[in-house]
Amino acid sequence: MARRRQLYEGKAKVIFEGPEPGTLVCYFKDDATAFNNQKKGTITGKGVLNNRISEFLMLRLQDLGIPTHFLRRLNMREQLVREVEIIPVEVIVRNVAAGSMAKRLGIPEGTPLPRSIVEYCYKSDELGDPLISEEHITAFGWASPQDIDDFLAMSLRVNDFLSGIFLGIGIKLVDFKLEFGRIYDENGDVRIVLADELSPDNMRLWDVNTGEKMDKDRFRRDMGNVEEAYREVARRLGVLPEGANVEAIDGESN
Amino acid sequence: MARRRQLYEGKAKVIFEGPEPGTLVCYFKDDATAFNNQKKGTITGKGVLNNRISEFLMLRLQDLGIPTHFLRRLNMREQLVREVEIIPVEVIVRNVAAGSMAKRLGIPEGTPLPRSIVEYCYKSDELGDPLISEEHITAFGWASPQDIDDFLAMSLRVNDFLSGIFLGIGIKLVDFKLEFGRIYDENGDVRIVLADELSPDNMRLWDVNTGEKMDKDRFRRDMGNVEEAYREVARRLGVLPEGANVEAIDGESN
Repeated sequence: MARRRQLYEGKAKVIFEGPEPGTLVCYFKDDATAFNNQKKGTITGKGVLNNRISEFLMLRLQDLGIPTHFLRRLNMREQLVREVEIIPVEVIVRNVAAGSMAKRLGIPEGTPLPRSIVEYCYKSDELGDPLISEEHITAFGWASPQDIDDFLAMSLRVNDFLSGIFLGIGIKLVDFKLEFGRIYDENGDVRIVLADELSPDNMRLWDVNTGEKMDKDRFRRDMGNVEEAYREVARRLGVLPEGANVEAIDGESN
Repeated sequence: MARRRQLYEGKAKVIFEGPEPGTLVCYFKDDATAFNNQKKGTITGKGVLNNRISEFLMLRLQDLGIPTHFLRRLNMREQLVREVEIIPVEVIVRNVAAGSMAKRLGIPEGTPLPRSIVEYCYKSDELGDPLISEEHITAFGWASPQDIDDFLAMSLRVNDFLSGIFLGIGIKLVDFKLEFGRIYDENGDVRIVLADELSPDNMRLWDVNTGEKMDKDRFRRDMGNVEEAYREVARRLGVLPEGANVEAIDGESN
């Protein structure tokens, strides 16, 4: 099979031209990075698992009426998505203090927040994705006030829904990151859709009973059993590939 | 004269009990700190000048109808203010990219902003006054949405007015920091008032013609002529004490 033209290689994914105009193919790699690329490594099988986990969660969100860029999974490591105009803002939703917010505000990790908090970061590897507020987003034209209303409404719905899904399988959704994009339809109307991926790369997931971390923090903090954690999330969601020895699976096979 | 009871010593001021309930005396020191206390020094005469500059600007803002904690200047280094319940949020208004924002967002210092930007920081020396957004302020109860509306409305008026005053004397107001407090009246009604001080310690002021810095950045960045810059701001505002050899002035004399 002839490879499609590569458009972009990111830290965890490669983006190829899709089979039809307005579509892209996302290839999920096993590469993992942390601390703004200062730490690099591989989580064997991560790409296969994240492709499945993200497919499952995106489809369930679409069922709920939340528009996403996801079209369909193509094979073990690839999915077809709609091409969107990327909005350079990361939306972070937090239910429990952890990671950068815990450190920044001096709140012990694990402290439940008085209510869910939405943070924005400016998407820039070079600057380390700095925290921003709505003021910066609108002043610099990264998104409009209406876009921000859409981010906020969708992010809170995603939070409610994902919190529920994960709680049902014994996992606390601590926080997660979303990215959004714009799609222009034939009439030139613009729509904001959820883009990127939904996976343990972009979420903090803690086992409800043991408190054990089941996400990329195991990699960031050298806690070991990283592959096992990702596989366990996929298993509980019911999306672990049949008899999966994910290490052995080639990207092109289905 | 018997000293009043000291309540608090800050980086640039000492706060004493005032002569009547609900009042405080602020004593303006010559001490200067930067980079969250990592750099310490003295700017000779700064306390005298900031006391005068802040008096002048607070009175002009009161004329405009903006409520402040300022009551009256007592002597060369002291002013009487109303006691307020401190709100642990610093409000920063920026007209030109400089300082922490320029660095954080990778914008060259001196770039005019598309519009004035209001930022919030959590007032905590220990945490280095981290950037926060309205989400953090309301979620943690540091201020209410109504308080934030008041901050924003007052900050933008202060910006318009101070920009005008400084432009009239050949100075560009690049950015500044405000602090607010709550005052409860006899009926228990609460009012948000401007607190702290308005001085070259909390503002970036650039000479319109030469671009020369006339503020605390001269101290932060070891640029020399720090005292001269503060004195020149006071001189242009018309508040330099008569024949002032400010170094020689004692805090208790008038």
